[in-house]
Amino acid sequence: MTTSAPQTNPAERILMGPGPSTVPHRVLRALSCPTLGHLDPQYLAIMDETCEMLRRVFHTKNALTFPVSGTGMAGMECIAVNLLEPGDEAIVCVNGVFGTRMKDVMERCGATVHAIEAPWGETISKEQIGAALDAHPKAKLLGIVHAETSTGAHQSLTGFADLCHAKGAMLIVDAVTSLAGHELHVDDWGIDAIYSGTQKCLSCPPGLAPVSFGERALAAMDGRKTKVQSWYLDVSMLRKYYTNPGAGGGRVYHHTAPINMTYALREALAIVLEEGIENRIERHAIMHRRLRAGLKEMGIAYIPTHSLHTLNCIHIPAGADDATVRRRLLEEYGIEIGSGLGPMAGKAWRIGLMGHGATQRNVDLVLAALLEVLK
Amino acid sequence: MTTSAPQTNPAERILMGPGPSTVPHRVLRALSCPTLGHLDPQYLAIMDETCEMLRRVFHTKNALTFPVSGTGMAGMECIAVNLLEPGDEAIVCVNGVFGTRMKDVMERCGATVHAIEAPWGETISKEQIGAALDAHPKAKLLGIVHAETSTGAHQSLTGFADLCHAKGAMLIVDAVTSLAGHELHVDDWGIDAIYSGTQKCLSCPPGLAPVSFGERALAAMDGRKTKVQSWYLDVSMLRKYYTNPGAGGGRVYHHTAPINMTYALREALAIVLEEGIENRIERHAIMHRRLRAGLKEMGIAYIPTHSLHTLNCIHIPAGADDATVRRRLLEEYGIEIGSGLGPMAGKAWRIGLMGHGATQRNVDLVLAALLEVLK
Repeated sequence: MTTSAPQTNPAERILMGPGPSTVPHRVLRALSCPTLGHLDPQYLAIMDETCEMLRRVFHTKNALTFPVSGTGMAGMECIAVNLLEPGDEAIVCVNGVFGTRMKDVMERCGATVHAIEAPWGETISKEQIGAALDAHPKAKLLGIVHAETSTGAHQSLTGFADLCHAKGAMLIVDAVTSLAGHELHVDDWGIDAIYSGTQKCLSCPPGLAPVSFGERALAAMDGRKTKVQSWYLDVSMLRKYYTNPGAGGGRVYHHTAPINMTYALREALAIVLEEGIENRIERHAIMHRRLRAGLKEMGIAYIPTHSLHTLNCIHIPAGADDATVRRRLLEEYGIEIGSGLGPMAGKAWRIGLMGHGATQRNVDLVLAALLEVLK
Repeated sequence: MTTSAPQTNPAERILMGPGPSTVPHRVLRALSCPTLGHLDPQYLAIMDETCEMLRRVFHTKNALTFPVSGTGMAGMECIAVNLLEPGDEAIVCVNGVFGTRMKDVMERCGATVHAIEAPWGETISKEQIGAALDAHPKAKLLGIVHAETSTGAHQSLTGFADLCHAKGAMLIVDAVTSLAGHELHVDDWGIDAIYSGTQKCLSCPPGLAPVSFGERALAAMDGRKTKVQSWYLDVSMLRKYYTNPGAGGGRVYHHTAPINMTYALREALAIVLEEGIENRIERHAIMHRRLRAGLKEMGIAYIPTHSLHTLNCIHIPAGADDATVRRRLLEEYGIEIGSGLGPMAGKAWRIGLMGHGATQRNVDLVLAALLEVLK
């Protein structure tokens, strides 16, 4: 390597995998604005606006709604380490990579985690939830993935919060691939804590994990007997920086926030609110149906019974070589689609229709490209 | 709030606080390049180059050198959670905010942490290190801050590794405010694990934490009896993504890396290597001396006996109002300087001369501005 490296000039991909999704120019422009200090009044105003816009997109009034300084998985970990202590019990729904991971993350907090299982691609029923809560009455929380990015399954959450709350358990939701792409109402649905990522249906680069904590979660955190095992993700300190303590209070420095990523997230959220959340969700539904119809004509079937609109997990057609097709899409069309994860490796493709990328232009292009490459 | 938020247009500050430092346009431009997927061959090449450039700036051959997906403190936590297990003993040097924090972070890993203390602003002596290692022969590691951002003290590390290694302990170094601003030779100095941030002397926005692990650290990780308590920062998985497994191997997805921040870090490192690491360090020394001379003429004294070049921690002159002066510098000059932290709040200012901001132009301007504001 010479001292002088060539300039960074990445290709202009069309990102139709499981995320990141293609980032609009407006967001990239915001990302590159001059860096402010993390205690600059201008930055604090931008951060407050960002948190307020996050509340609107999450449909919540939760004061403690902010972007964690890490990618989506840091959001999962933030919720786990703050809500669980050694000796706690938890229930996690496992029907894909991210449920499996949530169980692992929670076990690393010293909790005993009981799994509710369903085959990959399937969803968890209300009956299963009820039975698990009955079987494990001490469970402090129940964790579930709303949009399983590994299988494309869309998990209904209807009635789950009531079941949890009746047993004194919190409902924790992974909304990494659903926020701003599927219906999601944190307050109306009784969700007690939720996390997402910026690089999916918000179409912002990866690097932040929006989270929101409701009253039950605050009470659980206030009632902790032990320190949160992660200093970096300790909400008892983070809240002194992220939530405005009001007149007479002050912001307490915790760590240096990722300033420029906050600019980008703010712009991405502004775009969501300009389009209208409901319009955006409807657009995702329309594009999903268009893609599904096109794939059906090609004889390509979906894996999950209840498919996400945002991520389309499909069977690799007989005779097609997984790696070759994906490589040709990338090289000949600049289109990225995702491979199968875990037991679905080599058997599934995952086509993302997320945020800025969920367009008729992209749907028709990826169908045309697949037709050509599968010839 | 209306649906349509105004554009993000932060002011163009001159960042002369404890970090972030002012980011050069080249880095902001790289930051805003189109987002690639985290498994795209183009992205993997950019990441590999970034890691290779990090090795050069750290002066190390450590294969396991990469940017953690979080700000500087995520780097501290990454090293703590991977190298320590419940029941371990550690020694941490405490003479400011960041040593205090390192002790806290390591205790949260279940370790018993013995402190070596010095007054804030002072440094730790070789004799203290030797005595602590004698007193705690089971210590697995000794943690020390090379550049204490809260006090401006510059800690010599000469001979420390030999003392540690003779007792079977690893030497762990916080180089957040020294990397690329002060002499730092990871391999020659026998440092076993080190972390830094991007937003100081690398002049990249905050959001990544470069880390490097040497042979002893790898052996300690391989010898663990328990899982790393943080899934997000678990190096046993991260290394399968960040280190190239060579021919026939493959990258194993762990989490979605902060793609655009990697572009920015790569560009920031390219700038460091173009200038030359030694030239850059010398520039920091020259600018520090220029600032010190100017402050001396104004009757303003330094707090630490051994001052960093990168961060100048000075006594607030008698009669000056801390908040008013900092506010006027920000409003009238667009200059940010730092306030005192912890016991130094209201007693100290911290003037950063880091990376892109360590220039004669900035030194002379901040001196002129202080003269005016202190009139």
